[in-house]
Amino acid sequence: MARRHGGRQGRAEAGPPPAKDYSRLRHPFAPQRIFSDDEVTAIHQAALEVLQELGLKVLLPEARQILADAGARVSDEMVYFGRDMVEEALRTAPRSWRVNARNPDHSHVYEPGALFFSGSGGCPNASDAVRGRRPGDLESYTDALKLQQHFSVIHKFSPSAEPQDVPVPLRHYAMIRAQMATGDKALFGYARGRAQIEDTFEMVRLGMGLSDEEFLNNSWCSTVINTNSPRMIDAPMAQGIVDFARAGQMLIITPFCLAGAMAPITVAGALTLQHAESLGAITLAQMARPGAPVSYGGFGSNVDMKSGSPAFGTPEHVKMQLGSGQLARHIGLPWRSAAGSASNVADAQGATENMMGLWGGMMSGATLIVHSGGWLEGGLTFGYEKMITDLEGVQMIADLCAPTSGAEAEIGMDALRDVEPGGHFFATQHTMERYDQAFYSPLVADLSNFGSWEEAGAEDAATRATRVWQGILAEYTPPPGCDEAVARIEQFIADRSAAGGAPPME
Amino acid sequence: MARRHGGRQGRAEAGPPPAKDYSRLRHPFAPQRIFSDDEVTAIHQAALEVLQELGLKVLLPEARQILADAGARVSDEMVYFGRDMVEEALRTAPRSWRVNARNPDHSHVYEPGALFFSGSGGCPNASDAVRGRRPGDLESYTDALKLQQHFSVIHKFSPSAEPQDVPVPLRHYAMIRAQMATGDKALFGYARGRAQIEDTFEMVRLGMGLSDEEFLNNSWCSTVINTNSPRMIDAPMAQGIVDFARAGQMLIITPFCLAGAMAPITVAGALTLQHAESLGAITLAQMARPGAPVSYGGFGSNVDMKSGSPAFGTPEHVKMQLGSGQLARHIGLPWRSAAGSASNVADAQGATENMMGLWGGMMSGATLIVHSGGWLEGGLTFGYEKMITDLEGVQMIADLCAPTSGAEAEIGMDALRDVEPGGHFFATQHTMERYDQAFYSPLVADLSNFGSWEEAGAEDAATRATRVWQGILAEYTPPPGCDEAVARIEQFIADRSAAGGAPPME
Repeated sequence: MARRHGGRQGRAEAGPPPAKDYSRLRHPFAPQRIFSDDEVTAIHQAALEVLQELGLKVLLPEARQILADAGARVSDEMVYFGRDMVEEALRTAPRSWRVNARNPDHSHVYEPGALFFSGSGGCPNASDAVRGRRPGDLESYTDALKLQQHFSVIHKFSPSAEPQDVPVPLRHYAMIRAQMATGDKALFGYARGRAQIEDTFEMVRLGMGLSDEEFLNNSWCSTVINTNSPRMIDAPMAQGIVDFARAGQMLIITPFCLAGAMAPITVAGALTLQHAESLGAITLAQMARPGAPVSYGGFGSNVDMKSGSPAFGTPEHVKMQLGSGQLARHIGLPWRSAAGSASNVADAQGATENMMGLWGGMMSGATLIVHSGGWLEGGLTFGYEKMITDLEGVQMIADLCAPTSGAEAEIGMDALRDVEPGGHFFATQHTMERYDQAFYSPLVADLSNFGSWEEAGAEDAATRATRVWQGILAEYTPPPGCDEAVARIEQFIADRSAAGGAPPME
Repeated sequence: MARRHGGRQGRAEAGPPPAKDYSRLRHPFAPQRIFSDDEVTAIHQAALEVLQELGLKVLLPEARQILADAGARVSDEMVYFGRDMVEEALRTAPRSWRVNARNPDHSHVYEPGALFFSGSGGCPNASDAVRGRRPGDLESYTDALKLQQHFSVIHKFSPSAEPQDVPVPLRHYAMIRAQMATGDKALFGYARGRAQIEDTFEMVRLGMGLSDEEFLNNSWCSTVINTNSPRMIDAPMAQGIVDFARAGQMLIITPFCLAGAMAPITVAGALTLQHAESLGAITLAQMARPGAPVSYGGFGSNVDMKSGSPAFGTPEHVKMQLGSGQLARHIGLPWRSAAGSASNVADAQGATENMMGLWGGMMSGATLIVHSGGWLEGGLTFGYEKMITDLEGVQMIADLCAPTSGAEAEIGMDALRDVEPGGHFFATQHTMERYDQAFYSPLVADLSNFGSWEEAGAEDAATRATRVWQGILAEYTPPPGCDEAVARIEQFIADRSAAGGAPPME
């Protein structure tokens, strides 16, 4: 079969089509299922049984007191949740809320049917082809923010590389400051104890210029709550639930259930544990403040049975996504899922794994797909090149959210009439009218033929990705208002830093 | 968050779990849509209008005569299909048939709801890390067959690298012989004119030991029919339709509609053209022999608007898959789709592109997903390493076809009771009972931690893939019966070769 490669040079002069805007996405597909409705009900009931009979270990006395006051049976550090408490929590938990950003164009309604992507979160290390692999630092943390701000398909900030060069009691200042200095998307703050959380909230209020009332009645920043599976919520996480809920800031509940390790080896068993922990955390949030914005969620995958290493983007990962979606719909809440990869490098393995989690998130109706780009080594490292190669997949999947018209003009009977058998459609009016809007425009994919590609150095996608992120960072200009936002928090940071900052909770 | 990497060495001694069997797959998900039912009807009606008013150019007089006899208006080389003819063809075209292989375990029922994968098809070149990129030869053709036979997730043979070292008039003997000598999956033959087709059929009859009746009443081999878009069926393809249909052998109709080049720039327009060409070819097949097994199909993607190069695994590729699935369901026929990549190497780009087409095929309910593994450079090259890195994705997606149980035993309340908060499930009875069957076992993915991976040479997936295909080929043993099948065709091949073979049709 004859195929055209590298032809039509005349078109190249017209330049690439404008980048598409992926900032507002709705799921285009019907969510899929792995369980029958009866099985979903059975898993939900089993999770309620876990909460009532086996209980959760909650390491924060204040959280145990809130739950005891709401009717839970508390014995030592164990909390046993009655079904009525959980049901009450699910009645008050909102189905939809606004995730606010400094730039209203980046504010979003978080609800079932909406689709958000965020970059890698929680990586201690960073890696790129220029500086190599190293502990995360403020430079790599900031670089990742620039990349997150640059791509419209990334809908909120996430902490892609931990700035380990900033002392721990001061790190939260640097992280919030960098987010405000770099961009205007929705903010992320870690839950590492009340002192840091209060500082974070104060910086958000000051930086955004919000009154207490404006702050408390809307979500302006979010945090991720990882339970310590199985059946434990540690003190910083419990504190985060209580404090974020009371302040009306968004909680993203995320049991990290690896089937065969910290969770049962079966998908149904691991999801029962995830569901119990998620429901327990949601209940704590709602008892702390009814109506607090709290996202259901989970990050489930399996361990490799040969090595015991966590695996990502596996069939089990996708099955847990699909089952999580069913459980989220069962309780009616929006929910977070995750992609990500175990690969050590931005190669075919890493792409295959991430694409599995991205498609799994799409097909399970996830509201938010975390770790969509840049997550190497099961999250131990943020990869600059990986961020670029992953975002190609994220953008292409996001492109499917745009409606496709089958209307008469799109069918284009005139164009079909215009072209003789064996001819081509390059010059038809139908083509010329649509040329500059048609088709996804590649981010890092190289579509040149083998000869041209080899002559140009035979670079693989990861190698080309270096130039892509370098170009974005070199040309990066913060959006309007960043300097002003930072100016509003500088004095607070200086004062607090002079006082020694805020140590994290043990 | 603490994560376990590289732990649990005791488990490694138990060896990998047994490879899963993916030889019988049914679609686990509901097919998705991009068009409304009205739009699907409009595209179908537009395609009928194309066939009736614009017509197809059919370059084979015999085919034009068949269509004229069935009531088509024929003018010079143009054939205008009445709607009644197309409707009659859709009445006689079977919805379900058996694709037979020498080994009944590899015979399959081809029908909506079934899911088949095949490897790369139609690549003139081959490439691997040892021999480099070169014109396809009989060795690479045979190597590809061995890989196809090895993996249970590949359900039929496809011609992955053209054996260009075999003279054209003898090539079809070498190709059928190599398939019979290598494995026992369903056979593929090219449609390159009546002389070669008759030889192919004779080899199939002899090799399988079939009576004429057994051969003619069941499908024992298949071919792919590419129309010359737009609106043309060349002589070899038309001959293939007529001859395969009359012999009751499976036709896989595949217009290759690149939106913006040989097809309209819109998804709806390109699909209208694809649908018209596919319906025209199906009609010719049914007029040649009512009830002949013919698969609807298409291979649609777009050209890159910068270079004019074909792009694969793009959003438009997936949208055309989804629309094709809707059109196939509209006419009630099983259908073929395709994955594939434009990348020049088995890198993140190649994996991302192929995963798009694999998931697109899954979500559009394709009966057969062609080019699932090894298709580099938009099909110009079969890549050995690419075959391995792609098949990881194919196997993981195929794994989703297995039902997931949410029954009581799987929920495992006992296991949940067994493990204290913060503990682990490694040693629970629930885990031990399921350990050797649990989880997908990686083909080429490396799940070791960064340190171990770096120490072992920091190899990416493509590099590791070399050892994987080398290992498979080194240990390859043909299944029982191959020698006998070949013995039954040797004399025929010798006689025909001595007579000069059969030249392909011009």
